Amino acid sequence: MQAVHNIPEICAQLGITDVVLSPGSRCAPLTIAFARHPGIAVRTVPDERAAAFIALGLAQAQRRAVALVCTSGTAGLNYAPAVAEAYFQQIPLVLFTADRPPEWIDQLDGQTIRQTDLYGAHAKGSFTFPADTAHADAQWHATRIVSEAIGLAQQFPAGPVQVNVPLREPFYPKQGEELQFGPVKVTRELPGRPQLPAAVLHELRDAVQRTSRVLVVAGQHPADTELLLALQQFAATHHVPVVGDLIANLHLPAAAGYDQRLRPLGRQDVFMAVPEPGLKEALKPELLITFGQSLISKALKLYLRNAKPAQHWHIQPAGAVADTFQSLTKVVRMEPVDFFAALSEVSVHPHETAHQEQATRSIPVGPTTNVKPQGFEPSASSIIARADATRVASRPQPLGEPVRLSWPTPDADPAKAAYLKPWLAAESWATNFLQDFIQQPNQPFNEFTAIYHALQHLPDRTALHLANSMAVRYANILGVPAGRTVEIFANRGTSGIDGCTSTAVGAALAQPGRPVVLLTGDVAFFYDRNAFWHNYPMPNLRVVLLNNHAGGIFRLIDGPRQQPELEEFFETRQPLRAENTARDFGLRYFAVSTFAELESALPVFFAAETGAALLEITTDSATNADFFEHYRALVRTSFSS
Amino acid sequence: MQAVHNIPEICAQLGITDVVLSPGSRCAPLTIAFARHPGIAVRTVPDERAAAFIALGLAQAQRRAVALVCTSGTAGLNYAPAVAEAYFQQIPLVLFTADRPPEWIDQLDGQTIRQTDLYGAHAKGSFTFPADTAHADAQWHATRIVSEAIGLAQQFPAGPVQVNVPLREPFYPKQGEELQFGPVKVTRELPGRPQLPAAVLHELRDAVQRTSRVLVVAGQHPADTELLLALQQFAATHHVPVVGDLIANLHLPAAAGYDQRLRPLGRQDVFMAVPEPGLKEALKPELLITFGQSLISKALKLYLRNAKPAQHWHIQPAGAVADTFQSLTKVVRMEPVDFFAALSEVSVHPHETAHQEQATRSIPVGPTTNVKPQGFEPSASSIIARADATRVASRPQPLGEPVRLSWPTPDADPAKAAYLKPWLAAESWATNFLQDFIQQPNQPFNEFTAIYHALQHLPDRTALHLANSMAVRYANILGVPAGRTVEIFANRGTSGIDGCTSTAVGAALAQPGRPVVLLTGDVAFFYDRNAFWHNYPMPNLRVVLLNNHAGGIFRLIDGPRQQPELEEFFETRQPLRAENTARDFGLRYFAVSTFAELESALPVFFAAETGAALLEITTDSATNADFFEHYRALVRTSFSS
Repeated sequence: MQAVHNIPEICAQLGITDVVLSPGSRCAPLTIAFARHPGIAVRTVPDERAAAFIALGLAQAQRRAVALVCTSGTAGLNYAPAVAEAYFQQIPLVLFTADRPPEWIDQLDGQTIRQTDLYGAHAKGSFTFPADTAHADAQWHATRIVSEAIGLAQQFPAGPVQVNVPLREPFYPKQGEELQFGPVKVTRELPGRPQLPAAVLHELRDAVQRTSRVLVVAGQHPADTELLLALQQFAATHHVPVVGDLIANLHLPAAAGYDQRLRPLGRQDVFMAVPEPGLKEALKPELLITFGQSLISKALKLYLRNAKPAQHWHIQPAGAVADTFQSLTKVVRMEPVDFFAALSEVSVHPHETAHQEQATRSIPVGPTTNVKPQGFEPSASSIIARADATRVASRPQPLGEPVRLSWPTPDADPAKAAYLKPWLAAESWATNFLQDFIQQPNQPFNEFTAIYHALQHLPDRTALHLANSMAVRYANILGVPAGRTVEIFANRGTSGIDGCTSTAVGAALAQPGRPVVLLTGDVAFFYDRNAFWHNYPMPNLRVVLLNNHAGGIFRLIDGPRQQPELEEFFETRQPLRAENTARDFGLRYFAVSTFAELESALPVFFAAETGAALLEITTDSATNADFFEHYRALVRTSFSS
Repeated sequence: MQAVHNIPEICAQLGITDVVLSPGSRCAPLTIAFARHPGIAVRTVPDERAAAFIALGLAQAQRRAVALVCTSGTAGLNYAPAVAEAYFQQIPLVLFTADRPPEWIDQLDGQTIRQTDLYGAHAKGSFTFPADTAHADAQWHATRIVSEAIGLAQQFPAGPVQVNVPLREPFYPKQGEELQFGPVKVTRELPGRPQLPAAVLHELRDAVQRTSRVLVVAGQHPADTELLLALQQFAATHHVPVVGDLIANLHLPAAAGYDQRLRPLGRQDVFMAVPEPGLKEALKPELLITFGQSLISKALKLYLRNAKPAQHWHIQPAGAVADTFQSLTKVVRMEPVDFFAALSEVSVHPHETAHQEQATRSIPVGPTTNVKPQGFEPSASSIIARADATRVASRPQPLGEPVRLSWPTPDADPAKAAYLKPWLAAESWATNFLQDFIQQPNQPFNEFTAIYHALQHLPDRTALHLANSMAVRYANILGVPAGRTVEIFANRGTSGIDGCTSTAVGAALAQPGRPVVLLTGDVAFFYDRNAFWHNYPMPNLRVVLLNNHAGGIFRLIDGPRQQPELEEFFETRQPLRAENTARDFGLRYFAVSTFAELESALPVFFAAETGAALLEITTDSATNADFFEHYRALVRTSFSS
């Protein structure tokens, strides 16, 4: 068993600090070794599906690999949804699956399946620990593959790696026996950082400078201050619009030297829904530069597919690259931060320095005062009362609020200014439109506006977890309050609903000193209730549950809404309320179903001293659908450039 | 979409009557086609893990394939635990997993993973539906693979088959549009029944007749009246002991012509635990004949591995065969019922008819009156009071009860009688021992005895689902009341806890006119609560929940019990009670924590008019462990042959 006892020691030496165990008999040697190792925080979670997503949440928050241990049989198969999410979201997990020794596979013993390469195409690799470690070479093999597995999991693009560990009885040390950890030899990966030859970088920079219509679009990306600074420098140097969904974390206030007035755009879900051919034409890029993972904004994605830019460069240091917009022409094998920094350094070509002396001046970016959206005349059947011209001034942190976008424009290149201007104008219009729309008085209680209010109350430094599928979409439209550091997480690797709660729970366990807020719908919430089924306190966790008693998304899209199968087979109406769940798991429970109740609950709900809490916002799914349809109708008719 | 609309028509023509859907967008064409098809019962279950086990429960009860439909992404991965269970338990499922078309895989679209061959080694096959069905050959292909998939799933050994269905938008028919189903050509499988040449059968029969120490052991097997009759005929002809765990369903009263006095043995979990070398020696087989799947009784399994019979024949018509006892010498490719019937027909060899004229006579099979087990003197620390010599007569159906085993013995072959006798004696001893043990007065409230009482109240015709891991083990020791038709189901393909409740729910949905009872522990129960999260009534379902607030099995086995990690990492103590769950899902809730409460609750709980109900039996895990340890100690010391 010494080889097994060495596993946590190798993990600890290679930087793993956390393991999530699920109970079992076959895995006992691993369980005991991890539980007794002084360098690893150990938590046990009975439902392996939840356990794996909790580990994913821990790894996502800590930005390092987390280990998992489960017993033999279907235990490991319950990891599979989180393994796929980790694979596509590039999160390092090292999965130690206990197994029977090879001679006992398919011999009708209990809890025995075929565990070799259990995760197929969704793991970066799969290793088999030696069943016999008496021979010195086998000991070397055992140590080596644990090192290799951890290295592989953490190499870019990071992901899940399985180590299948066949174990023979006896599983347990003698009573009072002390375990030895190591000594072990580990192999450390020193990750290199790919650089392009200077000549190639110059060509790329020349192309950016030469091209009038350059657009940067960011996919899902962890918060990264250095990247924000480099992006801003690049955008300012080349007068290029930068667009990112909320999950790209470009909205964050960055460190010293970052100019909030030059922050990237994030209202594409609003203005891209405007069916204005003139606007669409004005925004078309010739050169699209992207980095990160997936987009949420379907409107932007479809627009870019349709726009067919002549060039699309994707910046990604290694790994397979998606041709998301069917226009991919270059894959640039660099870190995005290095790429944007390198292409902002204009001093490399001395003859270009003239460009650097342009003055930064403010350009008009659409209406500068709050305007009422056009066409906001409710139809007879509308549920929205006519807008009151008097603005409600008491909102705590009005959305879209303080900083006016104010980009430098190139005196020398009016074509670049002409391309940047409609992007900034569209963003400004969308911000104002939304602010007006959301603050209309006399609304029926609906989840769209309720989310807006909940987001306004987010504490600073919140890690905000957005569940699939409507929560993340609504939040991407509404944004988070400017000026507050709200970091965004969402399981957009596979966009499943199956582990959103567990992922947030993992984040809460990883960062006890930080508020972790989950915004979720009822189907995702009840699906993954076992996220709470463990014995670890999470006083920093807040769950905002939008309960419309159905998969509300299906009432919001045209196809299913018109089918007789809507309620039973698409929405799947379900009667559960969360009160019993909150009671079962010791979450302080708040229930609201009016704006007044919501506003009075939010400050208490988010107060640090409240502890783990659940806010159930009950709405009516038909009202939500009508309200959101009204929003969409207004977007389509209100635009004025 | 016509090719997709034809899928339910092909299913219906090939005998599938039920589909379980989980909601999603990509799967909408499948959902709508199944929902509108008049020949298929459609149910929708949001948690795919539960949905797949519910389908497994339906298929197990109906003994035919059930279809599943889910959307793209991790939805299908949540099927994986049930797929593995179906694979090893040989239950036919046809899994229609909706997918994006191939060109959009790995392009960062939402809910997109790599679905081809998603279940790897745990599916019997994986088909890819054509993405384009405009060409006539593609239409033929589409129809053909659905036929093939259903055929493959149902061929022995039955199992799960995936059909991955890539779908392009639009997903929805126009409002009011009517779907056409077919016409389709289907391909039907007419399963053949393998027969051995007469000469080979004669050789086998000669070997059985020649061998004094022949033992038949049955693994997990669905209830089968014909098989019971054939087995009895075989056992009576050859004077061979037949042993089966509860999951082999050999305990059932069979149809006309079946002699209860000759029923197979089932107390091996008791008498095999007796460390009596003389008994072990007396029971050793020379020829072991097995059929069916896995055993529960670890004592029997280890005994047979150790006994190393000279010959081990396993009877299985097709498929891979396990060498469970490390002695396998022949695989007989026949249906067990055909094998036992063929080897009972002694008229084939006229010179052997003498053997048929033996009189059936009763042989003494150990004590004929109820005896007190030897050594039943409790230790000072014992929690069991000394046996009261007066038997409690009021138990509704005393265990082990009425029929005295009474096998024919061969006048001609005293060696066979000498081998049969200790088996019958051991069974008789174990029955009496258990009856005495369980009925001791002044017991502390414990789950072992509580289960005994619950089992005594099972309604006739119950489908009893035994959850992993302690529920099925306890029930295998205790047995079910003789004379009542109680059919046993358990997920012993992989012995997971992950879907035991959902499987019972599927059974309840499949057989609304029959009581379906689930006996389960708290970890398995809370793990799979989403089994109840759907909108279909189950008035015939009763859940008997043994809540000891932990994975009690870990306190019952020596290794973990002695470790400091016992409570946190093995038992995983958990505080949940089921009351809130019962309230959430409309189950009538009964809670008991004394024998008196239990006895008064059971008749109401099982009454037909009570409707869906949950009986929570709360016990103390340390008391359970002490009581069970006492039982085991007495078994080890009480045997008298």
